[in-house]
Amino acid sequence: MPSKRLDLPPGVLQPREAVLNMAPYSPPTGNRADKLRLDFNENTVGASPRVIEYLRENITEAGLAIYPEYAEIKQELAAFFGVEPDDFILTNGTDEAIQVLINTYVDDGDEVLLLRPSYAMYRFYAEVAGASVREIPYRKEKLAFPLDELLLGIRPATRAILIANPNNPTGTGISRAGIERILAKANGAAVLIDEAYYEFCGVTALPLLNDYPNLFVTRTFSKVYGMAAMRLGCLFSQSGNVEFLHKAQSPYSVNTVATLAARAAIQDRAYIEKYVTEALAARELLCVGLEQLGIKYYESKANFVLFEAGDRAIPLRDELRRRGVLVRDRSYEMPGCVRVTVGTRDQIRRFLSELTEVW
Amino acid sequence: MPSKRLDLPPGVLQPREAVLNMAPYSPPTGNRADKLRLDFNENTVGASPRVIEYLRENITEAGLAIYPEYAEIKQELAAFFGVEPDDFILTNGTDEAIQVLINTYVDDGDEVLLLRPSYAMYRFYAEVAGASVREIPYRKEKLAFPLDELLLGIRPATRAILIANPNNPTGTGISRAGIERILAKANGAAVLIDEAYYEFCGVTALPLLNDYPNLFVTRTFSKVYGMAAMRLGCLFSQSGNVEFLHKAQSPYSVNTVATLAARAAIQDRAYIEKYVTEALAARELLCVGLEQLGIKYYESKANFVLFEAGDRAIPLRDELRRRGVLVRDRSYEMPGCVRVTVGTRDQIRRFLSELTEVW
Repeated sequence: MPSKRLDLPPGVLQPREAVLNMAPYSPPTGNRADKLRLDFNENTVGASPRVIEYLRENITEAGLAIYPEYAEIKQELAAFFGVEPDDFILTNGTDEAIQVLINTYVDDGDEVLLLRPSYAMYRFYAEVAGASVREIPYRKEKLAFPLDELLLGIRPATRAILIANPNNPTGTGISRAGIERILAKANGAAVLIDEAYYEFCGVTALPLLNDYPNLFVTRTFSKVYGMAAMRLGCLFSQSGNVEFLHKAQSPYSVNTVATLAARAAIQDRAYIEKYVTEALAARELLCVGLEQLGIKYYESKANFVLFEAGDRAIPLRDELRRRGVLVRDRSYEMPGCVRVTVGTRDQIRRFLSELTEVW
Repeated sequence: MPSKRLDLPPGVLQPREAVLNMAPYSPPTGNRADKLRLDFNENTVGASPRVIEYLRENITEAGLAIYPEYAEIKQELAAFFGVEPDDFILTNGTDEAIQVLINTYVDDGDEVLLLRPSYAMYRFYAEVAGASVREIPYRKEKLAFPLDELLLGIRPATRAILIANPNNPTGTGISRAGIERILAKANGAAVLIDEAYYEFCGVTALPLLNDYPNLFVTRTFSKVYGMAAMRLGCLFSQSGNVEFLHKAQSPYSVNTVATLAARAAIQDRAYIEKYVTEALAARELLCVGLEQLGIKYYESKANFVLFEAGDRAIPLRDELRRRGVLVRDRSYEMPGCVRVTVGTRDQIRRFLSELTEVW
């Protein structure tokens, strides 16, 4: 379109229309290390010390020089997740899982169904692929999952449906029975259930894998495992589908150090269980604190809570940052809403104390 | 196409035609650690010990839990490469650089121009994007770069041209003047010069960056730096283009440990220079040895040499593997050709000794 060319500075190479029209996704990261990080739903304590110990022992000059090998870690992860090694691929975080799913099933112009608000990278990869995106809004009442609306929205042309369960940033979830109704109706579409926050919620679609050839599930090591820096996820489906996912994936997208870290991480289940218990207690504490301040919040099944700050959302975020506490303003998708990650009770006490002063 | 549907086992979800028709790229990796690895053009000695030391000191529980931050390492790499931080993106190996370039400039059905044989991932990502790929063969004589043929092949419809310099697996290169002729002719196309093996050759297109808004250059830490396990590359272009590359890229595709490793690696130039000197001496030794055995080889500007083994290519590779020496058969693209990585002279002496016995 010539009108678009006019927008480009002279000498800039003309990109695809799809890229020109995309909004850049630039989450504000940088200088977070010395602050209380309640903004990205990470593990706020850190990875298991056993992971660090294992990495220090197993990172070697020769090991770094070798292209990644995945056979062993896939065996170990398969045993951990209770699937076969052919039932999943390793991915460079959940982000690459979304990209590979889209690249495998969604052609230029194909329809992708999303929920709104949800994880921004669903729309991002759908748009990079040139897909036509339709969005179903979460219900206003309690931000509940809009199951009936989604079921009505599924059309023969729908090629993919991407769902986070529990959802980010709403924190709300869908039951396994609800997922089955979607899978049954959308039998010609790839249905992704992104379980990034599974450990805080306990609902999983993984046991449905054998029953639905259109089911895809992701898990990540970026959240409860405290390994966001490493970039490791898993994308599960029936092995017949995994063959095609594998074809559309670059052969070395996951780095070796992430696979070493995962090996150690899955051997320290106690660490994860303890963290989840603590985070759930902290979430309870947070909700009580918000109630005491008269702040409206949404019930969450994940390690974060969305609350309403109205016009004060952005100034509040900025004032908290000045005090060393990072939270995430979600106004662009949920006007006036702020999302706060729950970590430990001590961290939430500090957050509530700062919030009380600035509210 | 219904005929394709018949090829799918029952219950497998229908992938895109582009994916169905792709040949999977599955390089044979696994169980390489205990062998002499002359098969993937890695650094055969390993990363700098200073990299390992720096990683051991700087990998922490809290650090692993935080999503990657790139501002500091981008400053350091910009100074190292002699560019501005806005002139490049970090990529998950060169592979992601190719993918981002294609995703930014090549639409479904657009024409991509490649050379044959060349790095397999060019065709891979072009096909994932649904591009129409045309290939210009390297000249039979000395596998020289087919500059005139390529210039003739550039059409107004050409949206991208992907060139490795020096090329893999031929080892042959193109001069900077030749690159300028391509850039001048293909002024509406993204021209990628993949400099994965730059350090062994010394020819670079980076100084042309300011002169050509259609120039893209990649560098990698997977080869001479001995960091293939970490997955780190850089994709350079004018900042006006980089803005669009950035839009089409996932925000956290490079892991933090790779950025830590790169910081230490670029501070140990002496290690790299010493390795390059050794590898070039080893390459000379290899060529003399091949000549003494009467084996035809191609002159290389990289850390590998392609030689002709005819019908014996695959049995030779297998027999060498039994003896603990890995080389790469390239028959599918260069009938009868075997590629051997050069590392140290001692390693090449061992290779030649084994080769002499089995030849």
